[in-house]
Amino acid sequence: MRKPLFCLTLLLIFLSKSGFAQDLSIDSERLHQSLIKLSTFGKNAAGGTDRVAYSQYDIEAREYIKGLMKAAGLKVSTDFAGNIIGRKSGKNPNLKPIAFGSHIDEVPNGGDYDGPVGSMGAIEVASTLNEKGIETEHPLEVIIFTNEEGGVVGSRALVGALSKEALQVKSNAGITQAEGIKLLGGDPERIPELKRNPGDLAAFLELHIEQGGNLDTEKLDIGVVEGIVAIEWWEFTFLGKANHAGTTPMDMRKDPMLPAARFVLAVNEIVNSYEGKQVGTVGKIQAFPGAGNVIPGEVKVNVELRDLSSDKIWKIYADIEAKAKLLAAESQTELNVKHIEVASKPALADPMVREIIQTQAEKLGFTTKSLPSGAGHDAQEMARIAPMGMIFIPSKDGISHAPAEYSTKADIANGANVLLQTILELDKRLK
Amino acid sequence: MRKPLFCLTLLLIFLSKSGFAQDLSIDSERLHQSLIKLSTFGKNAAGGTDRVAYSQYDIEAREYIKGLMKAAGLKVSTDFAGNIIGRKSGKNPNLKPIAFGSHIDEVPNGGDYDGPVGSMGAIEVASTLNEKGIETEHPLEVIIFTNEEGGVVGSRALVGALSKEALQVKSNAGITQAEGIKLLGGDPERIPELKRNPGDLAAFLELHIEQGGNLDTEKLDIGVVEGIVAIEWWEFTFLGKANHAGTTPMDMRKDPMLPAARFVLAVNEIVNSYEGKQVGTVGKIQAFPGAGNVIPGEVKVNVELRDLSSDKIWKIYADIEAKAKLLAAESQTELNVKHIEVASKPALADPMVREIIQTQAEKLGFTTKSLPSGAGHDAQEMARIAPMGMIFIPSKDGISHAPAEYSTKADIANGANVLLQTILELDKRLK
Repeated sequence: MRKPLFCLTLLLIFLSKSGFAQDLSIDSERLHQSLIKLSTFGKNAAGGTDRVAYSQYDIEAREYIKGLMKAAGLKVSTDFAGNIIGRKSGKNPNLKPIAFGSHIDEVPNGGDYDGPVGSMGAIEVASTLNEKGIETEHPLEVIIFTNEEGGVVGSRALVGALSKEALQVKSNAGITQAEGIKLLGGDPERIPELKRNPGDLAAFLELHIEQGGNLDTEKLDIGVVEGIVAIEWWEFTFLGKANHAGTTPMDMRKDPMLPAARFVLAVNEIVNSYEGKQVGTVGKIQAFPGAGNVIPGEVKVNVELRDLSSDKIWKIYADIEAKAKLLAAESQTELNVKHIEVASKPALADPMVREIIQTQAEKLGFTTKSLPSGAGHDAQEMARIAPMGMIFIPSKDGISHAPAEYSTKADIANGANVLLQTILELDKRLK
Repeated sequence: MRKPLFCLTLLLIFLSKSGFAQDLSIDSERLHQSLIKLSTFGKNAAGGTDRVAYSQYDIEAREYIKGLMKAAGLKVSTDFAGNIIGRKSGKNPNLKPIAFGSHIDEVPNGGDYDGPVGSMGAIEVASTLNEKGIETEHPLEVIIFTNEEGGVVGSRALVGALSKEALQVKSNAGITQAEGIKLLGGDPERIPELKRNPGDLAAFLELHIEQGGNLDTEKLDIGVVEGIVAIEWWEFTFLGKANHAGTTPMDMRKDPMLPAARFVLAVNEIVNSYEGKQVGTVGKIQAFPGAGNVIPGEVKVNVELRDLSSDKIWKIYADIEAKAKLLAAESQTELNVKHIEVASKPALADPMVREIIQTQAEKLGFTTKSLPSGAGHDAQEMARIAPMGMIFIPSKDGISHAPAEYSTKADIANGANVLLQTILELDKRLK
């Protein structure tokens, strides 16, 4: 009888050495309940969530968040931009913090997952570490950013990229960013003081719903984000000659609707003609004057391109522009092209962080896919100052920014566990 | 010396018998000056004319019109709908009047010819007859219709086709039709009393600018109007799935913009595939929600078809609808089609009146072309109760409803002379 017992003891020792961290797991039910509770702040009659930044719902939800953070053993403060920061010290006072978090504000009539999953997931990770008495080498920071949906305001402030002009812009709550930040207990005037510089953080991680249909369609568990794509916008205007739709014979028309329609199809064809994950969209088209009984004088077509590579975007754009010129010439219309400044540059995930997310997800037995984030996130701002990584979980039917936005309890728990393991592995590897 | 004198006398007698009416001519300069004077009522800084119906400009211009009519020997009155009617009795009290006229109201920032040419042309014809002491067999009526641009209000009232609801519609002057008609000295309550029935007029004639480029392009003098086209409107809606333009891969989209663009091109191709003068226009296209960063959930495309034959319109429509269904099926989008009631049926010109216009124009040495009117006119309403004819003169570059609208002094005089001769010939033929 002694031999088997000895073997079992050895096995347990082996497991405790090699698999200890992997056994550690967040509390799926607690995370689920916290998301349900958060969803009550601003729930509307249509089932959507009206928790726009700076609203009373946002303010009340933030108090709930602060309470959870304190319960997780974090030292909670609100910075000058209104970001809620929960700090936990590490064993090694010389190391910079590993930060992770997301946002809890929503678009008007939004859903309950875009932002909340990463926010509550981050707090759940902190709660788990606290509960299990696990102390990391690095200090940890859980950050709940101010007004992500209204222009990644909190994260921009944190990296020194929020302009004075941006503070005067009205937000969805009907007040300016500056007024809103004051309501959250921030101090807009002193925002420049909170700026973090490259090297101030060891890493930044964000867990988020995919907001697209890749993982859901392919029945995959975890998305390893390659980076956040750059976005470029243009407005193409085809100018013909407005005229009476009744009195102008077909062969005497200079109707810009025709090259505009051909152009819409060309944009789609050109974007699809390239290998890769780039996307191109015509989301807006307008004819002027825009009456059923008037041949339009001009038609405006908005084109958006997104890709992880700005070079590729501009290469695709060159094809699109050349085609537009050809279509205008063929139809004897004039063409005006305006590049619309949206100032969205690509933000690549850190290769080591990506690799760790990938490895940890696989160790936990999850299927994964590397993919770009087509949407903007606080992580894109944080990438300016720290090695950045993002973890995606499936969004049902790819829906987001709508009441139908949904991720399963299991998928959310999977994402939070990957976040937990990634933090622990980063803590080991970053010294 | 006696022989030549005798021959000359014979020649003069011959000419006076055969060519008397053809020698009669309107006063081109007087007509020109009256148009210049009329254009001063409501001229704006941009060179356009703001003489919308019921405006102070309209009211003042009407006083000018009444003065001219009286000077032309007409007995002037204003009917319950505000139409100005100038009457001249004929030799035969048993005959019904030959009526002719147009309108003097304009679209906002309109031109100086659409309406005025036919109005001042009609008054000039009356002045010429008065000046030359010519009395026709039929009584004559010069009619200046109320608010043509705001829904052929005066002519509809005259034929009993103006509904009570239409009287409550706001017009371009910012007041209802009923309020406007009161300002003109009419009495909206009593409009039913002024209704004319089929047979109440011997004929109705309208001189008008073409508002299209046929005559101008082909350098022709006179357009003999075949009729006023029917107009049908439809709204085609392609329904796909609205989605995030960044997070939705190209191959997971159900983007209604693509079938909508193909449909715009198909409408043009189908309309052009038929022989004839039909026109088809997509003047309005809208994507919803219509943001540069959102794949549209639906795209609405407005289609207008015009032709003298309603049968042909519906035949063309059948092709268009079939194509739309095909495009929707191919793109896995849904299609909704809504027929928009514009209640515009074709109004054909009377064959005899057309023939007389044609013959008289040719006798005067003018080049002519038979063509449909793609625009609506008071004549289309008058066709409900009387044999109708319309005379078109060239519009420079086919422009109308704009400050650049222009017809030459010579073309206007030609048109008025054709109107004069047509009235005289009708007076002979209609007994």
